[in-house]
Amino acid sequence: MNRSAPSPSVPVSQTVSGVSIGQYLIRRLQEYGLEDIFGIPGDYILSFYGMLEKSPINVVGCTREDCAGFAADAYARVKGLGAVCVTYCVGGLSICNSIAGAYAEKSPVVILTGSPGLRERTNNPLLHHMVRDFNTQKDVFEKLCIAGAELSDPVSAFREIDRVLDAVVRFKRPGYIELPRDMVNVIPHISHVFPSQENTSDPQALSEAVGEAAQLIQNAEKPVILAGVELHRFHLQDELVALAEHTQIPVAATVLGKSVIRETHPLYVGLYEGAIGREEVTRFVEESDLVLLLGTFMTDINMGVFTANLDPSKCIYATSEQLRLKHHHYHGITLPDFVRHLAKRDIPCVKRALPEGIRMQMPPVGDITDQPITTRRMMQMINPLLDDETVVIADIGDSLFAATELVTQGRSEFLSPAYYTSMGFAVPATLGAQTANHKARIVAVIGDGAFQMTGMELSTIVRLGYDPVIIVLDNHGYGTERWLHPGDWKYNEIHAWSYSKLPEVLRGGTGYEVSTEKEFHAALHKAWDDRDAMSIIHVHLPDDDASPTLHRLSHRLGANV
Amino acid sequence: MNRSAPSPSVPVSQTVSGVSIGQYLIRRLQEYGLEDIFGIPGDYILSFYGMLEKSPINVVGCTREDCAGFAADAYARVKGLGAVCVTYCVGGLSICNSIAGAYAEKSPVVILTGSPGLRERTNNPLLHHMVRDFNTQKDVFEKLCIAGAELSDPVSAFREIDRVLDAVVRFKRPGYIELPRDMVNVIPHISHVFPSQENTSDPQALSEAVGEAAQLIQNAEKPVILAGVELHRFHLQDELVALAEHTQIPVAATVLGKSVIRETHPLYVGLYEGAIGREEVTRFVEESDLVLLLGTFMTDINMGVFTANLDPSKCIYATSEQLRLKHHHYHGITLPDFVRHLAKRDIPCVKRALPEGIRMQMPPVGDITDQPITTRRMMQMINPLLDDETVVIADIGDSLFAATELVTQGRSEFLSPAYYTSMGFAVPATLGAQTANHKARIVAVIGDGAFQMTGMELSTIVRLGYDPVIIVLDNHGYGTERWLHPGDWKYNEIHAWSYSKLPEVLRGGTGYEVSTEKEFHAALHKAWDDRDAMSIIHVHLPDDDASPTLHRLSHRLGANV
Repeated sequence: MNRSAPSPSVPVSQTVSGVSIGQYLIRRLQEYGLEDIFGIPGDYILSFYGMLEKSPINVVGCTREDCAGFAADAYARVKGLGAVCVTYCVGGLSICNSIAGAYAEKSPVVILTGSPGLRERTNNPLLHHMVRDFNTQKDVFEKLCIAGAELSDPVSAFREIDRVLDAVVRFKRPGYIELPRDMVNVIPHISHVFPSQENTSDPQALSEAVGEAAQLIQNAEKPVILAGVELHRFHLQDELVALAEHTQIPVAATVLGKSVIRETHPLYVGLYEGAIGREEVTRFVEESDLVLLLGTFMTDINMGVFTANLDPSKCIYATSEQLRLKHHHYHGITLPDFVRHLAKRDIPCVKRALPEGIRMQMPPVGDITDQPITTRRMMQMINPLLDDETVVIADIGDSLFAATELVTQGRSEFLSPAYYTSMGFAVPATLGAQTANHKARIVAVIGDGAFQMTGMELSTIVRLGYDPVIIVLDNHGYGTERWLHPGDWKYNEIHAWSYSKLPEVLRGGTGYEVSTEKEFHAALHKAWDDRDAMSIIHVHLPDDDASPTLHRLSHRLGANV
Repeated sequence: MNRSAPSPSVPVSQTVSGVSIGQYLIRRLQEYGLEDIFGIPGDYILSFYGMLEKSPINVVGCTREDCAGFAADAYARVKGLGAVCVTYCVGGLSICNSIAGAYAEKSPVVILTGSPGLRERTNNPLLHHMVRDFNTQKDVFEKLCIAGAELSDPVSAFREIDRVLDAVVRFKRPGYIELPRDMVNVIPHISHVFPSQENTSDPQALSEAVGEAAQLIQNAEKPVILAGVELHRFHLQDELVALAEHTQIPVAATVLGKSVIRETHPLYVGLYEGAIGREEVTRFVEESDLVLLLGTFMTDINMGVFTANLDPSKCIYATSEQLRLKHHHYHGITLPDFVRHLAKRDIPCVKRALPEGIRMQMPPVGDITDQPITTRRMMQMINPLLDDETVVIADIGDSLFAATELVTQGRSEFLSPAYYTSMGFAVPATLGAQTANHKARIVAVIGDGAFQMTGMELSTIVRLGYDPVIIVLDNHGYGTERWLHPGDWKYNEIHAWSYSKLPEVLRGGTGYEVSTEKEFHAALHKAWDDRDAMSIIHVHLPDDDASPTLHRLSHRLGANV
């Protein structure tokens, strides 16, 4: 986790006047720490694009809008707030899927979009890019966002901007702001004070809840913390470590929360993925007499397809949406307040012993042979390269399953859409993460099917001179589905590309094509040492290649298909 | 227009029993003439994919869902009905933009999508691919479709399928069908008669309306027909020609309706695009004392950005949504009935003379030089190649503006998203159109910005062995926007690809890279003669290249940006 990046600070109250709606929006985004924005221009948003280009915010043009959405999502995961700026309908309706993913996985992304000017709407003309009526795009995003506003009234525009940005940062969900193009330069004739809104807890409820939780911990003999992704979103990683070290409670993580604590930490036992995870971790968590679920979503893939077998009467369940101790609920307590106060509390505890061999470890690489390379062996070779600066980005399918076996070191970060599981996240997310942290050493692992969806966003990575290592796992198709729905189905086959020749099309970067352990190892190390431009490694996998996690997952998921 | 493809016939009533919901859906689609379906599989739709693969319907796997949506749209435009099949949310929410385009431009596309099984939804678990709740995807498509159904009840499932398909074919708008995955194989214990629903007009209203229209035509001295895209969607091209020839009324077309009548027809005067069109056509139409707008949408780009200056008291305005004669309306009359009856009516008319030089013509190519190639010269070279088998597909921007100057011959067809104007339509639309008509000679003209959005769908074109000619217009960015919002804006610049090297990545087809007239001419003719595989011609355009239409458009649109 990028622990050095603080949570976006809540801006101090200020009075503004004589500022246009567009300028106010840019100013507030900057105050929340936004430095870059992703998107594609279009005529309904051109004047705001002009304003952005003159502002200190850096505009990163992408090849497609949905890629801009994924990039903004990854940027938000690393930096605390992301934004995407697109034109009306043809732009906005192209990012529905990436914004839905940000909603599902709690990533704070602001959507800025243009729309026809209010003056153009008289007599309801059929303007280009219109679908059903002027509100179609806004109506759609109401289903995909935590808050939304159409800035059609100068008197309320600043308050509306404040409201949407506050909701995005508070709830870590996407928010929607629509700018009719003739409102961008309007200067409201009001003096506006924007409030410094700090979300605070009810002190008495907080005190009672923390007291009760401390008592439960003190009484427990076999407690465990199950750390989830919200600890990352709310920048509570340090508090997690403090709580664990203070109380000596062992920590497991969910897949979505992977790397929320460094996986070499002595108290870390591994990923809890229900029955599809490693059996010893499942047993350890489920045998606990107290499970502190902190910022954890109880999702299916994340938790292992309904196999999570946790008795609520043994759980403390704290998320941004609820705080439940055993079977009763506390209201009005924020997740950060609960975790911070609990971490500071002096709680006498007994150290719970870790079973022999439970801690995550990657076997050493050993001999590197001329055998066909497998995903498992690839991970063994990547693992020793991980350090504080590394960001691992895993796309969906066996890219994710295999990459969960990597042991993240120090502050190395792991990004993956592990719950929403939309294919095609990894390449645009690489663009977003690298923009958020130029120094990061990014390695992205992507299946061929996912790469064909959004991989050409490498274009922007080349244009900006970024140097990630992109690994394409080629099994000629939708490999995970072959395991989920066995049979000789043509629909899982995809066209074979020569991925390693993309640098010639994109006029930058280096391509590698490998089939054996030795070839992969050599390419990986050359790519890792190359800090001049991106590298893409096309890995031909054996037909029956699958990580152990995929074997377990297909066994469980297949029954429902 | 593909006049040989009949309007999808309305199936004859039949009784069915012992058929599963999935089988019934496939059967009804076939009865409406569907032979191919586009999409990408995913676990919530896998069992239906299996059923499709075993059915006579051909499944065309695409690289991305939104491309599948565009392909289905183009297929529907050529064949009368298209369909796309995708998984829940990550699939469905990726096609919002292409479906919105089909809605806006009246293309009959059926969206088939999976969703979590009803049995999996107990206690509201967080299943993968879920956004806000189980209904998010359905709620979104309610905004983008003419009808929708979730097949969650076996008793009503068949009726719901009938209702959605009927609405799609009747209104030429997209319809949404969601199949919870545990419903696919359910056999309803009902005996179902599906009705043969023919949409008929009120005979008395029809008779009065046609009589009044005939009288208006008879009284007119300078009548004109303004032909719109609905004549294509409702397969009324032959009736249009009959009406025009019968009455000797000259015909102009809108951009969206281009090629609804062959542009070499002696009665054809050209495209009416308001003030941005050719002045002589604008004058001819606006000086008319009677304008028959048949199947015409009064849209902005289509009609030339509000410059259409047509007095309603001189108009007969007939679309699928309304029939207005001067200032009064008739209800309950379908567009096909109105046009067919009017075309059959004996109306004594005076032939209106066409002004000298008004008819569309492309100047001959003349000398082919070593000068830099321009879009205008390209069109002069393409024009003589057009014949009955040609389909011209134009993406947005100057691709469209320049291509409107082509004179379509015989039954050659012109496809473009000229109203919704979503970039990236052309390459996936080429896939769709070629699938609908294997014999067609397709030439697609695409700007570099649009190509970078969806051009990799060439992958599927290569995989299927199709042979279109793809022309990429390279002006290093979003050229139209440079004209709309003058200034040295970085946001309009895009990364330069070596498009002609894509055949090496895609392992098929031939690439050309040209800068001069001679080079383009040679590449075009080689590509045209190559019926073995696709050709891609990368055209480097001079920096200041712009078609005359773009000059006119930017002059009008720029004022609003």
